[in-house]
Amino acid sequence: MVTEAIGVDVGGTKVLAGLVEPSGARAGLVSSARVPTPATARGLVDAIVDVVATLDAPRSLPVGIGCAGLVDRDGVVRSSPNLADLHDLRLAEETGDRLGRVVTVANDATCAVLAEHRLGAGAGIDDLVLVTLGTGIGCGFIVDGRVRVGARGFAGEAGHMVIDPAGPPCVCGKRGCWERYASGSGLARIAAEAMDVGQLGDVAVSTAGGGGVHVAPEELDEAARAGSVGAEAVYRLFSDRLALGLANLVNVLDPELVILGGGLVKAADLFMEPTRKALGEYLYDYRSRPVRLELAELGEEATVVGAALLAAGTPGADPTF
Amino acid sequence: MVTEAIGVDVGGTKVLAGLVEPSGARAGLVSSARVPTPATARGLVDAIVDVVATLDAPRSLPVGIGCAGLVDRDGVVRSSPNLADLHDLRLAEETGDRLGRVVTVANDATCAVLAEHRLGAGAGIDDLVLVTLGTGIGCGFIVDGRVRVGARGFAGEAGHMVIDPAGPPCVCGKRGCWERYASGSGLARIAAEAMDVGQLGDVAVSTAGGGGVHVAPEELDEAARAGSVGAEAVYRLFSDRLALGLANLVNVLDPELVILGGGLVKAADLFMEPTRKALGEYLYDYRSRPVRLELAELGEEATVVGAALLAAGTPGADPTF
Repeated sequence: MVTEAIGVDVGGTKVLAGLVEPSGARAGLVSSARVPTPATARGLVDAIVDVVATLDAPRSLPVGIGCAGLVDRDGVVRSSPNLADLHDLRLAEETGDRLGRVVTVANDATCAVLAEHRLGAGAGIDDLVLVTLGTGIGCGFIVDGRVRVGARGFAGEAGHMVIDPAGPPCVCGKRGCWERYASGSGLARIAAEAMDVGQLGDVAVSTAGGGGVHVAPEELDEAARAGSVGAEAVYRLFSDRLALGLANLVNVLDPELVILGGGLVKAADLFMEPTRKALGEYLYDYRSRPVRLELAELGEEATVVGAALLAAGTPGADPTF
Repeated sequence: MVTEAIGVDVGGTKVLAGLVEPSGARAGLVSSARVPTPATARGLVDAIVDVVATLDAPRSLPVGIGCAGLVDRDGVVRSSPNLADLHDLRLAEETGDRLGRVVTVANDATCAVLAEHRLGAGAGIDDLVLVTLGTGIGCGFIVDGRVRVGARGFAGEAGHMVIDPAGPPCVCGKRGCWERYASGSGLARIAAEAMDVGQLGDVAVSTAGGGGVHVAPEELDEAARAGSVGAEAVYRLFSDRLALGLANLVNVLDPELVILGGGLVKAADLFMEPTRKALGEYLYDYRSRPVRLELAELGEEATVVGAALLAAGTPGADPTF
């Protein structure tokens, strides 16, 4: 195994790159750099090449890239909901040629779960699920001690589990997907509905592009912490639906631990306990199957670190990458 | 690996035992015997010991038992919805002591998926899901070439995925579980609702214990095949909800193949094509992720054969058993 590797996190708003020590006493992120995510596929390849160059790392270091969306086992980004221009982009090949480095590409949640498994909340646990709560829902698994990505690399699209066939329409074309309730956009949708019927009282609102009315999360969180009955009700429904989807995953996969990550965990004080309670109630025969629900430890660095671990050939990374 | 092993399938109505050749040209069931499933845990242990004895197999042959319900990695049946007296039954230990043989116990769908993977519809495929449609829904996985059972052995309780939080109550205490729609009992429930509102016309009905009104499946199937608009509508809803749950599993696990087994596949002509079509529509970004949906090949022998494969230490069986 190499002693250093480069990780890159391609998200909807930023490209974050970092130099990572995969193991040892100082395991983790050594240095990092970021640029805004360009709107085009061509621009994205350029941005990755540029931001990796700023790390000034030895030419021999391999690169791992974690990218939101459907990434196949050959490092091709088939599609990515928040990166509209990315279709069938051969990201591993194109960046590898330009960088003169070996590049490995995987889904961003796949990278994050690897990082949490090796260096974070899931250290030492052989069966775990990471669920990231951002604009949408990301999901990665460790099963029998290894990260698993499915036949094509597309496992973990748990955000598009349908949990109510009569629910609100989703960007994917279906109705009632889990992430219409239990993600950042889901929380905003629940809050907007509460606002429409006057349940949020005088909680300030902001309007966003496309004519949609959104409750800024900070305002919602402040209201909930200040005891707003309406804001608490929003978080109660959010927690219930979050727990419902987590219970679905636990019923299917039987992990020992579920880790919650992503931007929304900054409001974990508002939903963690009700979610734990509802998870216990939703689980089939809970008496027989306790499962721990914990917060991620690596924060926004998880994908960068995990991508580097993947590139470094860390034990536990899928051998087929 | 041994050249012969004994498999036992403990179901809600029968205990089926068989002598199995795990590999070679004659791989499969050699001989079998069955007895009705006793109502008590004590009676079940006796029945397994008796039915295995009738096989008259050499004392050296190991025994595998596939049992419906939550079976942990130590061979303890924690609970089983259709075997009400079974709670924390140390089935591996108790039958092993009585038989003087090494006994391995796993969930019945786990055994069945192993059999289909080695000798049936899933031969040569490293990532697949088996869904059995019986009274309830069973589920087993092959991930990266091996059967997976989760941290405790309880993976595959996909029948209790909630797909509609306002749906009909389930035996597990929740509402809207997948098996309230897409199992034998789910089909009967949908048909009973259609009958209540007169949609099944003159389709004959039968009443079952507990005051419930049930449509006998044969009568429903005959009506659907004869072009009854009401019976076809029942199967249309059944197929749609079956596909919805399958799409949830595919979105999470990304298998190459989904195998449908269990008693209901005898009516596969009534739901297979609509289910395939709906699965394509429910899948997130279907263009990128074709998945095959096929019928199981080993029929009601699958669990017996798979239990024997497990006992025989077949490659692909989980090393932790």
